Amino acid sequence: MTERFSFTLSASDGAARTGEIKTPRGTIRTPAFMPVGTAGTVKAMHPDHVRETGADVILGNTYHLMLRPTAERVNRLGGLHKFMNWQGPILTDSGGFQVMSLSKLRKMTEEGVSFQSHIDGSRHMLTPERSIEIQCLLGSDIQMQLDECPPHPIDYEGADKSLEMSLRWAARSKAAFAQKANPGMALFGIVQGSVYEDLRRKSLNGLTEQGFDGYSVGGLAVGEGQEVMFSVLEQITPLMPTDKPRYLMGVGKPSDLVGAVARGIDMFDCVLPTRSGRHGQAWTRHGPINLRNARFVDDDTPLDSTSDCPASRDYSKAYLSHLFRAGEPLGAMLLSWHNLHYYQQLMGQMRAAIAAGAFDKFLADFYAEQGAEA
Amino acid sequence: MTERFSFTLSASDGAARTGEIKTPRGTIRTPAFMPVGTAGTVKAMHPDHVRETGADVILGNTYHLMLRPTAERVNRLGGLHKFMNWQGPILTDSGGFQVMSLSKLRKMTEEGVSFQSHIDGSRHMLTPERSIEIQCLLGSDIQMQLDECPPHPIDYEGADKSLEMSLRWAARSKAAFAQKANPGMALFGIVQGSVYEDLRRKSLNGLTEQGFDGYSVGGLAVGEGQEVMFSVLEQITPLMPTDKPRYLMGVGKPSDLVGAVARGIDMFDCVLPTRSGRHGQAWTRHGPINLRNARFVDDDTPLDSTSDCPASRDYSKAYLSHLFRAGEPLGAMLLSWHNLHYYQQLMGQMRAAIAAGAFDKFLADFYAEQGAEA
Repeated sequence: MTERFSFTLSASDGAARTGEIKTPRGTIRTPAFMPVGTAGTVKAMHPDHVRETGADVILGNTYHLMLRPTAERVNRLGGLHKFMNWQGPILTDSGGFQVMSLSKLRKMTEEGVSFQSHIDGSRHMLTPERSIEIQCLLGSDIQMQLDECPPHPIDYEGADKSLEMSLRWAARSKAAFAQKANPGMALFGIVQGSVYEDLRRKSLNGLTEQGFDGYSVGGLAVGEGQEVMFSVLEQITPLMPTDKPRYLMGVGKPSDLVGAVARGIDMFDCVLPTRSGRHGQAWTRHGPINLRNARFVDDDTPLDSTSDCPASRDYSKAYLSHLFRAGEPLGAMLLSWHNLHYYQQLMGQMRAAIAAGAFDKFLADFYAEQGAEA
Repeated sequence: MTERFSFTLSASDGAARTGEIKTPRGTIRTPAFMPVGTAGTVKAMHPDHVRETGADVILGNTYHLMLRPTAERVNRLGGLHKFMNWQGPILTDSGGFQVMSLSKLRKMTEEGVSFQSHIDGSRHMLTPERSIEIQCLLGSDIQMQLDECPPHPIDYEGADKSLEMSLRWAARSKAAFAQKANPGMALFGIVQGSVYEDLRRKSLNGLTEQGFDGYSVGGLAVGEGQEVMFSVLEQITPLMPTDKPRYLMGVGKPSDLVGAVARGIDMFDCVLPTRSGRHGQAWTRHGPINLRNARFVDDDTPLDSTSDCPASRDYSKAYLSHLFRAGEPLGAMLLSWHNLHYYQQLMGQMRAAIAAGAFDKFLADFYAEQGAEA
């Protein structure tokens, strides 16, 4: 448990990079996709199956966990890793994004954001210091500064004012982290600035001056569309420190991941594989399919006969279709598993392609296979 | 796949028996508990976990499967074993019990029972012949005759009239089975007669004259209470053929299983471990507990630290409590798994105790541990 947090690049191919993040809880191969364990569980998944898909790290949500079962309770029970029976690294967000999207009666000031719980209406205050305190109580290996994620679209002045406050919150987060965190824990700063190139630069420069263990790109995947998102990445990633991990928050579809890796991103998280799995959607190398579709009721082929994932290999589409039609829990369990496995397989293919200097060929194959649905 | 169905007793201790049922799909150790896979899935369970709990055989419901996805579709897709990825033996009921409890606009005649689907309102007719046809289409290893399960209480004349028809349906089921079934498949007759000793005898005699591969005891666990149920078993099991398996349908709580094994029963099925697992109730050797209870929110002990079942051993009661409070699917997944494992462990202990001639000691220990909650 005394190993330091570190990041080592082993190969690049164009802007795409592959490497390893070392943490006291284990190694994260990058580019990495982090399944989301919102409330202390990757929904409908046994943790050992999450691990078997190839996930090196999962994400926990500060907002959900602070409200229920509370960070103090998780801490008393031995921390989040023990609580949810996940031995690998855990990354936590700051809670800020979900306060804005889920809570009621929010009020943001320079001090932080006060809000009412969407669960029981209780009042809470989230400040940069409290967010770090919670993430430390949870025992998070990779922590995020509290920031403001402005809506899209937002005007230039609003975006500027917002990122300035996020920079001040970054400094307060860093100070709190220096006081509270255990050796080996890491803190990431978050680049904001909406779609404005000079604001993104300003945000990044402000963060690198302070110095963080890694840099997240926030404020994307909020409705701006893939083209705009890629354009922002093309502007900002060439300016980001090459020796620190780059994390694109809340992204995304397989084609988002591929395009962002091609633009120099190392880490991702998204609820999409598990959420769409619960709703009958399977991600495959030929694009997404919905198992509720009538064409699958007599389809005796599995999602992927060549897969080493039981969920992908051992059940027919007709059976999965039946499970969703009958409202059986196993449907969500199998499709979440399949989707997470597909995502990890995709990340593994990208790592191998970058290491082999063959990322262009990977891209060509990916787009050819995905076809119009990518 | 050519092995015959057979039953061999290896030991008895008082009325309790242990042995093996051989089927082309594998061996069933008795006394056996069969998890219920209502609609082609043991709810919220991966099939390999069901197997790992020690289950040798599972039950499928003819009523549910005939309506959705339909027996013909399951047959086209290769049969129920392949469909649900369960390689071991499968026992199916006749559909009759659930037609009476779940369907609408039922009409029973000597021919059979016509009814409306509770899913889509479609009209169906279930006769002894059609029930066997469906069970053969599913590929069921152990099939049940169509019978009438009368309500409790029912008067003597009503029970008599009902069991007479069930005997005629038994003969029709047997004739249909002789035509349709594959070698190695088995057909059980079902003893009815409500709480009337001479009617139970009459039903049993009628069935043994016809001759079946096993004998089920039906019409119990329908509200008569444990004492009456045990009393009926004490009257009937001493008269049942010793060389055929005896199956008590739809039972039950752990104390029901133990008491029925003590009275000579070999096989059980019940939704209780999975249903109560989905509702936060865990069965333990100290009786049932409800994980939603406030006393568990800070309890860092697992359900059973000595268990070899991950669900029982690797998660604290506090975590399980959190999962149920947060409405997370993993709560139902883990408690269903734990409960099925506890049930199989109990069956294994009974088999071992009977084999060792120590069933009395097992009973004393069981009741002492269960305490007042048994």
